[in-house]
Amino acid sequence: MTLLAQMTTLARQAKTASRALASLTTDEKNRALRAMADALERDADGLKAANAQDMAVGAQLGLSAAMLDRLKLDDKRISGMARGLREVAALPDPVGRILDQRTRPNGLRLQKVSVPIGVVVIIYESRPNVTADAASLCFKSGNATILRGGKEALHSNQLIAQTMVAAGRMALGGRFPDHAIQVVPTPDREAIPALLSLTQYVDLCMPRGGEGLIRAVAECSKVPVIKHYKGVCHVFVDRDADPAMAEAIVLNAKCQRPAVCNAMETLLVDQPVAAAFLPRIAARLGERHVQLRVDETAAAILSAGEKPKAEIRPAAEQDWFTEYNDYILNVRVVDGVEAAIAHINHYGSAHSDSIVTRDEARARQFLAEVDSAAVYWNASTRFTDGGEFGMGAEIGISTDKIGARGPMGLEELTSYKWLGFGTGQVRT
Amino acid sequence: MTLLAQMTTLARQAKTASRALASLTTDEKNRALRAMADALERDADGLKAANAQDMAVGAQLGLSAAMLDRLKLDDKRISGMARGLREVAALPDPVGRILDQRTRPNGLRLQKVSVPIGVVVIIYESRPNVTADAASLCFKSGNATILRGGKEALHSNQLIAQTMVAAGRMALGGRFPDHAIQVVPTPDREAIPALLSLTQYVDLCMPRGGEGLIRAVAECSKVPVIKHYKGVCHVFVDRDADPAMAEAIVLNAKCQRPAVCNAMETLLVDQPVAAAFLPRIAARLGERHVQLRVDETAAAILSAGEKPKAEIRPAAEQDWFTEYNDYILNVRVVDGVEAAIAHINHYGSAHSDSIVTRDEARARQFLAEVDSAAVYWNASTRFTDGGEFGMGAEIGISTDKIGARGPMGLEELTSYKWLGFGTGQVRT
Repeated sequence: MTLLAQMTTLARQAKTASRALASLTTDEKNRALRAMADALERDADGLKAANAQDMAVGAQLGLSAAMLDRLKLDDKRISGMARGLREVAALPDPVGRILDQRTRPNGLRLQKVSVPIGVVVIIYESRPNVTADAASLCFKSGNATILRGGKEALHSNQLIAQTMVAAGRMALGGRFPDHAIQVVPTPDREAIPALLSLTQYVDLCMPRGGEGLIRAVAECSKVPVIKHYKGVCHVFVDRDADPAMAEAIVLNAKCQRPAVCNAMETLLVDQPVAAAFLPRIAARLGERHVQLRVDETAAAILSAGEKPKAEIRPAAEQDWFTEYNDYILNVRVVDGVEAAIAHINHYGSAHSDSIVTRDEARARQFLAEVDSAAVYWNASTRFTDGGEFGMGAEIGISTDKIGARGPMGLEELTSYKWLGFGTGQVRT
Repeated sequence: MTLLAQMTTLARQAKTASRALASLTTDEKNRALRAMADALERDADGLKAANAQDMAVGAQLGLSAAMLDRLKLDDKRISGMARGLREVAALPDPVGRILDQRTRPNGLRLQKVSVPIGVVVIIYESRPNVTADAASLCFKSGNATILRGGKEALHSNQLIAQTMVAAGRMALGGRFPDHAIQVVPTPDREAIPALLSLTQYVDLCMPRGGEGLIRAVAECSKVPVIKHYKGVCHVFVDRDADPAMAEAIVLNAKCQRPAVCNAMETLLVDQPVAAAFLPRIAARLGERHVQLRVDETAAAILSAGEKPKAEIRPAAEQDWFTEYNDYILNVRVVDGVEAAIAHINHYGSAHSDSIVTRDEARARQFLAEVDSAAVYWNASTRFTDGGEFGMGAEIGISTDKIGARGPMGLEELTSYKWLGFGTGQVRT
């Protein structure tokens, strides 16, 4: 069987499963999810054995210690997956919500109701627990999933999916569609473009990982892709910022967890307060070993006074576009909120940006004109997260304009349809 | 300048305009739209002269009389465009609606608000009034438009857009962004893939027209495309249908306007009522000169009794997939609602489908399991239309699952963003 034929079979099976998934009741879905959680814990030894195979291959391939750690499944991580599944079972069903309702003058009643998207392909790297997380969120939202994890995690991912499917079948019998959760069975890289060419079966692809992976997926896909390429997030300290609040937000946005997409990469400081604010924040960032890449104005200010502990170097043009995911921060002095907005819309990644100010008019302008998925006034960018937004769980964050934008939870894994309830209405 | 460079300039200008459009007030947008309407009527002679150029070229190119009629602009059509613009001015502003609102335990207040999508490319055929309609809907929803009509309408389209832009500038002065409405200035076919490769500037493409055009656009586009390829719509007459209601709905769905996408192409009749219903409906359809393409069971029933006036021939496999847009109807006898659903999900185009029945359980199953943008119970498929749905205006109909689905009005031309209102919240 050619790779395309193999992917076509996988995708066609998923489409068939998606029809059956759409008609499961909330109770059936929750029972299946709880059974899956129990099964993962019960089969922990099997999962660890499959994972040991992956770890051995990974070590042979020369994966770094950090990569191997991400790949590893131990009892704690397996219980973590099971707990995640039970949490998803406890969340409200996102399918069947009435989003709009109207009765037309001819008596035709229209309802806009949420429905599953259908077949969702999730592409991700290394960590096998993503397999259980993503599959459970898709299952709860009535979608069939095709999972494509890192090739180094293939055994672990396949066994996680098999365990979940077997448990679902035990819980629901013939009502559980066998192909609700599938793992792409080959590490062949060409499987991805083949799968993502099947617009008749696949409704959505969500790539998660580094910018390179996501660009490659978006480039080859014929099906819609929801994604964020990177998180180049900004904090703008306005001339009317409370300095203590600005300092707390900047330190949090940069240092609380620098490796994540909603961490700040560039600090913009308003000209009138730059001389006062910059030396102070540079000292604090220096204590945390943050390297600063600064524009000329900031450099002049920082070289004038007491030398801060932070390592300082000039920022290159490319730096303003860069997601460091590290203890590195770009710093630029801008003249006013409009310059800040222009910088963010030009260099940013439309992810998460914040203004610190006491001035409502400038805050409103920033909130309106910064073209990003999440825009904050007097809060850290680090809140862009499904859990922090109260979504209960998150399958990803989107910076797209079509479909979901910002953190994506269960509701964002649904589409909608219009239902028309008539009494014989015809169009005149 | 190469074609790609030319398209890049167009798209970059549109992106800049979209930022300015996003901050226009509702009143400003409405004033501009009314000024544009007045200008189109005032410049009717100029528009007719530009259109005469297009008509002359079209006649030379050997366009059919029907094509030439679609291309023509006369006083009536120009007032129609102006009236359309005034109607759009009167509709509620779709931007700035609060779609969700929540306050987190830490006091962070989150608002999900509707925002313009950004830069929208509209690709369509012949009729120049689409230029004014599409541009006005995009303008009201705060989007910059790049319009690409049929090459035979280029002079008309360019002058319509220029007239609208000049009027907008008169009404709003410097607040009106010069590149809010642009027409692709070249008939070169390669302009479309060039434009739709510019993911950094273009947010959405909406192709409108025949299936060939739409497939070509979807195939080449790197930006999201919202579309429907075709409308293969069904009416299923269930065993518990009211026969008179079924007859009225079938006749309406097929004959009221056969050339549109929400007209019925296939009639499915439930086995137990086929012998009674089919001869009767065949006679009525025959009176309207509808050709029937029937499966074997229907053929046997129709050849048994009095010969109906309708022309009858056997349906080929391909016919079930076909949008005729004509007085042709496929007819198939199916055994029960599940067979009807399976037929529709396999052969249909996920556009509009209807069940006629008095049985609520079967109706609910049909509404739930038919995977189409609009699903009706006891009503004609012909209602899938922005006007009929009370949207006020329609820019297209989508059968996609990501983004808008079903009729698309002003609200469907928006995306959303999350605003976070804090008092210094940081993540712990």
